[in-house]
Amino acid sequence: MRTIDWVDGGIELVDQTRLPHDLTVVRVTEVDDLIAAIERLTVRGAPALGVAGAFGVALLAHTAMPEAEVRAHAMRLRAARPTAVNLAWGVDRALGRLPEGPDAVLAEAIACRDEDIAASLAMGRRGATLLTDLVPDHPLRVMTICNTGGLAAVERGTALGVIQTLHERGELREVIAAETRPLLQGARLTAWELQRFGATYRLAVDSACPALLHRGYADVVVTGADRITARGDVANKIGTFALALAAKHAGVPFVVVAPESTVDPQTLDGSTIVIEDRPADEVVTVGGTPIAPADSNAVNPAFDVTDAELVTAIVTDQRVVRTDRGEAPVR
Amino acid sequence: MRTIDWVDGGIELVDQTRLPHDLTVVRVTEVDDLIAAIERLTVRGAPALGVAGAFGVALLAHTAMPEAEVRAHAMRLRAARPTAVNLAWGVDRALGRLPEGPDAVLAEAIACRDEDIAASLAMGRRGATLLTDLVPDHPLRVMTICNTGGLAAVERGTALGVIQTLHERGELREVIAAETRPLLQGARLTAWELQRFGATYRLAVDSACPALLHRGYADVVVTGADRITARGDVANKIGTFALALAAKHAGVPFVVVAPESTVDPQTLDGSTIVIEDRPADEVVTVGGTPIAPADSNAVNPAFDVTDAELVTAIVTDQRVVRTDRGEAPVR
Repeated sequence: MRTIDWVDGGIELVDQTRLPHDLTVVRVTEVDDLIAAIERLTVRGAPALGVAGAFGVALLAHTAMPEAEVRAHAMRLRAARPTAVNLAWGVDRALGRLPEGPDAVLAEAIACRDEDIAASLAMGRRGATLLTDLVPDHPLRVMTICNTGGLAAVERGTALGVIQTLHERGELREVIAAETRPLLQGARLTAWELQRFGATYRLAVDSACPALLHRGYADVVVTGADRITARGDVANKIGTFALALAAKHAGVPFVVVAPESTVDPQTLDGSTIVIEDRPADEVVTVGGTPIAPADSNAVNPAFDVTDAELVTAIVTDQRVVRTDRGEAPVR
Repeated sequence: MRTIDWVDGGIELVDQTRLPHDLTVVRVTEVDDLIAAIERLTVRGAPALGVAGAFGVALLAHTAMPEAEVRAHAMRLRAARPTAVNLAWGVDRALGRLPEGPDAVLAEAIACRDEDIAASLAMGRRGATLLTDLVPDHPLRVMTICNTGGLAAVERGTALGVIQTLHERGELREVIAAETRPLLQGARLTAWELQRFGATYRLAVDSACPALLHRGYADVVVTGADRITARGDVANKIGTFALALAAKHAGVPFVVVAPESTVDPQTLDGSTIVIEDRPADEVVTVGGTPIAPADSNAVNPAFDVTDAELVTAIVTDQRVVRTDRGEAPVR
């Protein structure tokens, strides 16, 4: 099953807001609906957003709009979520073929999709090998956060793809999955994927994960990334920084897995990354039910930035960057 | 309003499981009902549990049971929650007067209650003065976790009592309250108390708090404690360790506020503290609604232990222990 695909002239998306209870597919044929789907997190995850951006430009290219109008809509799509670099990357890549006509744009978007599938496989293999090299005792107990699986990509995913490969190799003992408030992607999506591929897992509230690392419950932490700076700072789901800090304190390797397209050479360090602040109601309600007094305000950053100094290694579809040995993604 | 009190021969408790939506008082006249109320977290918070333990022994002393039976039930009550030392302390203190008869036991329990009220006032004053001394810029932006207010004690509380005193002195700019999964005591109870005393606050998901400290959103972190070891290690609500680690990393003072009865001279360091593991359903459901796939397992430690090295100071009703200067609660 693909999380996002191009079918009969439109985009089909697994609606991630309805998992784990319902598996439904949404069909999108207008760019405004795609922007709304991205904002509502119907589709999410850095690699999937890259493919969504490219397919969105393909939708636009197949309309009768003049090129200037296509480009204006593409810029709105590009800005639907500010932190993930992949969305902009996918839009820009498809837009680069616009002068060649709609078929060329679609071919480029489909290439993005196929490369994402190939990249997931490559990251899974390279990441699983790195983890078994980093940790002497096998099979491994792995902690992760958010959802970085097939649902965050087209298939298999990034960090969770590595976990799936470990599982297929018989090297996975247990996953501790952070539930990932406010939107519970860990509890809803990662647990659902772990069940589907048959891994043993336990959920934990996010705040328990640093303490569990301190108490020796996991051999390694593996996360995805929404943006990686030239020096190796990592923007990722809120809560990633706390895991990295606790992993460092506990002497546990902290490994980031993301496609090359996540590396943003234009962003030199984490201090300049725009952190998306999302609405307070994501915090003060759970599944629509209020959990706080009426009129409670909230501060709701969707991402945080982990300095390269807290990262052991970055695994991409093309290479391993050993930040713990002073390497950087861009020299 | 008192969170727990002795009224007409029984114990009256604010039912904390129903806040912030309903303010209801539960009357308890049997020790089994008190044990159930403690296990269900109808009453919670280390100081309140101390008073609950003492009142529970007063209930037992006023029955016709033989002394050996009273002591047996008191031991069950004492073990209703293993991590908080105050519950055992309150039980033991009231039990010490058992040979003098039921009136002496009740008098001791009422003394526990009145001393708790006086202790909250003393902690509030001493803690507020320490915070304004530790942080040059006023008014203060304070981060806290769980509920440590009047609802965790008889009145005013520990860390939140300090925040209330700061507010009364005009020294409080804003509170960032961690929602405190799994049971959301921050979102449900702390936000409710902050609204009642008129403080400005924002809620945050627990995993955002370390990142917010890193980004400079708070001047100081203040928490309660369930047990403090002789050397100054602090057992407290799960998530406290992550805040302490991030505060240290950010150079932000981390202050623990608790009555003297929380200091346990018998526990030399944190490694020997029993951490209560609570049921998985607290994690995989929110307010009764499933948030994860059916049959998901969870690891759910209710507390964590923060090493003294991460603590700036411990404030009690009697003194300030500057752990950052090598002081320890017990020499």
